[in-house]
Amino acid sequence: MPGAAGLSAPARRLRFASLGREAECRARETMFECARRAGIRIVGACGGRGVCGTCLVRVLSGEVEEAQTTAASVRALAPADGWLRACTLRPLTDCTLELSPRSLAPIVRAEVEGLRAPRLALEPAVRSFEVALSAPDLAHAGADADRLLEALAVEGVARIELEALRALPPLAREAAWRMKVIAHGDEIIAAGLPGGRVLGLAVDLGTTNVAGFLLDLETGERLASLGIENPQAAFGADLVSRVNHAVREPQGAAELQSAAAAALSALARDLCEAVGARTDEIADVAICGNTAMHHLLLRLPVAQLGRAPYVPAACRALDVAARELGLPAAPGARAHLLAGVGGFVGGDHVAVLLATESRWSGATALVMDIGTNTEVSLVHGGEITTVSCPSGPALEGGHISCGMRAAEGAIERVWAENGRIEGRTIGGAAPVGVCGSGVVDAVAALLAAGAIDRRGRMRPDHPAVSQSGTRREAQLAPGVAFEQGDVRAVQLAKAAIRSGIDLLLADRGIEHGSLERLLIAGAFGAYLEVESATAIGLLPPLPRERVEQVGNAAGVGVRMALASVAARERAQRIAARCRYLELGVVPGFRDAFMRRIGFE
Amino acid sequence: MPGAAGLSAPARRLRFASLGREAECRARETMFECARRAGIRIVGACGGRGVCGTCLVRVLSGEVEEAQTTAASVRALAPADGWLRACTLRPLTDCTLELSPRSLAPIVRAEVEGLRAPRLALEPAVRSFEVALSAPDLAHAGADADRLLEALAVEGVARIELEALRALPPLAREAAWRMKVIAHGDEIIAAGLPGGRVLGLAVDLGTTNVAGFLLDLETGERLASLGIENPQAAFGADLVSRVNHAVREPQGAAELQSAAAAALSALARDLCEAVGARTDEIADVAICGNTAMHHLLLRLPVAQLGRAPYVPAACRALDVAARELGLPAAPGARAHLLAGVGGFVGGDHVAVLLATESRWSGATALVMDIGTNTEVSLVHGGEITTVSCPSGPALEGGHISCGMRAAEGAIERVWAENGRIEGRTIGGAAPVGVCGSGVVDAVAALLAAGAIDRRGRMRPDHPAVSQSGTRREAQLAPGVAFEQGDVRAVQLAKAAIRSGIDLLLADRGIEHGSLERLLIAGAFGAYLEVESATAIGLLPPLPRERVEQVGNAAGVGVRMALASVAARERAQRIAARCRYLELGVVPGFRDAFMRRIGFE
Repeated sequence: MPGAAGLSAPARRLRFASLGREAECRARETMFECARRAGIRIVGACGGRGVCGTCLVRVLSGEVEEAQTTAASVRALAPADGWLRACTLRPLTDCTLELSPRSLAPIVRAEVEGLRAPRLALEPAVRSFEVALSAPDLAHAGADADRLLEALAVEGVARIELEALRALPPLAREAAWRMKVIAHGDEIIAAGLPGGRVLGLAVDLGTTNVAGFLLDLETGERLASLGIENPQAAFGADLVSRVNHAVREPQGAAELQSAAAAALSALARDLCEAVGARTDEIADVAICGNTAMHHLLLRLPVAQLGRAPYVPAACRALDVAARELGLPAAPGARAHLLAGVGGFVGGDHVAVLLATESRWSGATALVMDIGTNTEVSLVHGGEITTVSCPSGPALEGGHISCGMRAAEGAIERVWAENGRIEGRTIGGAAPVGVCGSGVVDAVAALLAAGAIDRRGRMRPDHPAVSQSGTRREAQLAPGVAFEQGDVRAVQLAKAAIRSGIDLLLADRGIEHGSLERLLIAGAFGAYLEVESATAIGLLPPLPRERVEQVGNAAGVGVRMALASVAARERAQRIAARCRYLELGVVPGFRDAFMRRIGFE
Repeated sequence: MPGAAGLSAPARRLRFASLGREAECRARETMFECARRAGIRIVGACGGRGVCGTCLVRVLSGEVEEAQTTAASVRALAPADGWLRACTLRPLTDCTLELSPRSLAPIVRAEVEGLRAPRLALEPAVRSFEVALSAPDLAHAGADADRLLEALAVEGVARIELEALRALPPLAREAAWRMKVIAHGDEIIAAGLPGGRVLGLAVDLGTTNVAGFLLDLETGERLASLGIENPQAAFGADLVSRVNHAVREPQGAAELQSAAAAALSALARDLCEAVGARTDEIADVAICGNTAMHHLLLRLPVAQLGRAPYVPAACRALDVAARELGLPAAPGARAHLLAGVGGFVGGDHVAVLLATESRWSGATALVMDIGTNTEVSLVHGGEITTVSCPSGPALEGGHISCGMRAAEGAIERVWAENGRIEGRTIGGAAPVGVCGSGVVDAVAALLAAGAIDRRGRMRPDHPAVSQSGTRREAQLAPGVAFEQGDVRAVQLAKAAIRSGIDLLLADRGIEHGSLERLLIAGAFGAYLEVESATAIGLLPPLPRERVEQVGNAAGVGVRMALASVAARERAQRIAARCRYLELGVVPGFRDAFMRRIGFE
């Protein structure tokens, strides 16, 4: 009934020609929002506010209309060669789009990164075997799986997973009974043609970003990596909004699960395509994420996690069928979810601890992963105490009026020179906003220049500060202003983190001077100017050599767990050692927080 | 768009009021066919040919039309009190039906059967535990599953299945932390309120009939049992048609899987309802069936099974998630599929061997299960050799012109008296057809009366034989005639079975006189008149005391496997001991068959 279909709101499909991907654009959704929701790896550094020009598309076919952007001041970005910002467009019909090469989140091939990727201890959960069987005949008509399992009995393989079994008979005949068989523990999870690869997918499932890493599980080599936005952002930027959505909306939990699965599937597809592999060559998956991300991906109930006493359904490591999560992989592939600690502290922090174990083991050390939630572990006397600080997105440039992701045109460094504020952008381009590392710098610079006082108030008499109506702001660069509210957001974030550190130290009865090491993990932490962070009181004052920025340690940790069952066991042991301290029940939490809200 | 919906073929729903069940009636389908396909436990002894009147319904609402039945002579069955035969009706609108109590396949409650159900050795795969946990608070906010697993660690329970985990947090809070927890091996598969039951479902999945048995796995007690028709019959009466349907039709395999799943689901629901239980109290499932039934239920490929050399995908015992098969059960319940032997000889024959082990162990014995395929095992010198004989449905009354299931009005006994053919019906009712036991009797009686000769030809000069046109038949009772073609069908069936027995004996070099025991299993075998079967040459002539009719031994065997993991292991060992002999490759098979086609 084509007539009837024409009456209802038609589905507008966006085809991303060069990527071979399609997505259905919802009513009122911009092309950028649709791409994000579908896990298309579009950059969009400013988050779709129309200010940065990093989400460029060319409309190859179809009709579009202009969408109103959320940014107060949309700059005219002349469409050169027909390139338009996806965040300013809505489809009126089905459209075919070309995504600008510089707007594609980059897939990093191993050879590009070179030797910086550490060699991983290789002891994967999956093993592969080249098997040759005789063809059956009437006198030897044993069942396919039985004969295969007999051949592998000496290897301790005793079972076959149902999906793998379903695929076996046609495959065995196509392969003329010479196959490459993959087992997880004692169970066959896939059989393929000889020469097939044994790949692994490691995923750091963050609230804002999702990073995927494709490994060759026979060599331990990292083949490619890719980061995309978490499409769950469509349901809220922070954990609490998403948890509420899952609890309150009838389809909420299913929507959030699908969004997470879409991200992981997109990573699997894009990474495999980049190295000429098929997704069914993914034989194993390891995933880390905070407790909420973990629960939403597994579709575990979150009602009890969202309210006091904030109880997870499970913290232990879990192994589930990759298929159950909607991931494209080998028929019986499993997904290992790293153990979490408790409360909202999940497998991503455990992955950080796993990756940095040699640096904190035996020492008195702080290990922190700065993000929307900031997890901090204090290692002292062989014990680990962990807190989660609700730092919010400000430090990463979120909820900051001029905030954006690290991309060309983002102000990444700010300093005070003779009372004047100076800055530097990524790529030396014209400034369009401030990214995370620049945010902390900006506050430190405003503080050093005397543009804000000890309580965080912008001084209206300071030359860098201007006021129009109720809006008070400091100009960081032409067109990029840091507002009074932005300073307040940073104050709240740093107070949350620093008071968490204070309470950890007090809990064990030590002073910050006893810290032999302070490890800062995470993409934001990697670019943080430690001096600025210390100046605004985010970090305790320590000799610079004790502070180490360890980069995306969660990504390293989850790759270690993917590559080695021994690493998984170590992660589980580390998680079990961590004593989770719920800040809400620590006496004096509010006082500690209030003490750290200003600048001493 | 109600208008648009009105234009397409509307779904006509049948509501079976007293059963609380609904089914969608397809175009051209009779109400009887629809009920069968949906696993509604309607009797319909004649298979829907309109001759028996055992599928009576009353139309409570909706409009119907009369369907043409397939029977040559539809008898006028006056609708008493509005009762109509479902096999003669098609719905014109949605209908609500009442099913006549005597047309409902009976659920046999244990108390009815009394002491005849043997006590089973109880060592189930699932264990249950009453657990009481403290309620979490901010200072003790350990994850739900972690705390539960800690409490059960001493019992060797170490994991929790994903669906069970999903159900845990709301359940634990509803139950105020006092729960009954069920584990399969080291894995929690369900948690429920205290006092919940631990039930098991055993299923004998036959080509024609599906029998279900509900057990209490804490006491070993059989609670109820029920037999329904296999709804796969809609896709063909015999295995070959169904295998072809699965191979050739794009949705064929999915349709056959759904049909089998519908039957098992219907059994689970009806049995649970009969004893006031919920299907999610079913904590474990055991299933036996021939290889084709097994493969179609698991949706394993059957292309390679359907053609020489007839190779199964798997014969070993398999454990799969009950959920994967579409069965209603406890969240993480598993289904155990008994090991098969090879070719088409599956877990149902192994279940027969398991149930009768004490009777054949150490002896020289034949164990046979007569059905559409007749499996025969020869036990001799500690070895077991097994064949499958394609006997077809004739012996059960299928493909017999006047055949019907065992129900009121079915001729169950036939004998020759002074050259005349005499018969007796079930319930002493007016005769409407012949059921399985009567078919063999009828041929033996016709032979004894001299109405058929040694080659099976009906003698036109015999007073019991009449001829009209090309149709030659013998009257068994008023209105019930046994045709020449029916005799031929029985000859083919008995030749298939007897030649199989001959070849088994020849293979081991023994004579039938060496058989110390002949065990006949199966519903048909239970009612078979052994003297008649011997007279027509279906069975070898043996002293009567050596022949034992053991009833539905497959049902007993699958219940044993449900109740005990030791029994499962014994079944697996028995299956592995069986040497499968493919009759197609035995030299002299055709000669042996031709030798047994006549009556010596």
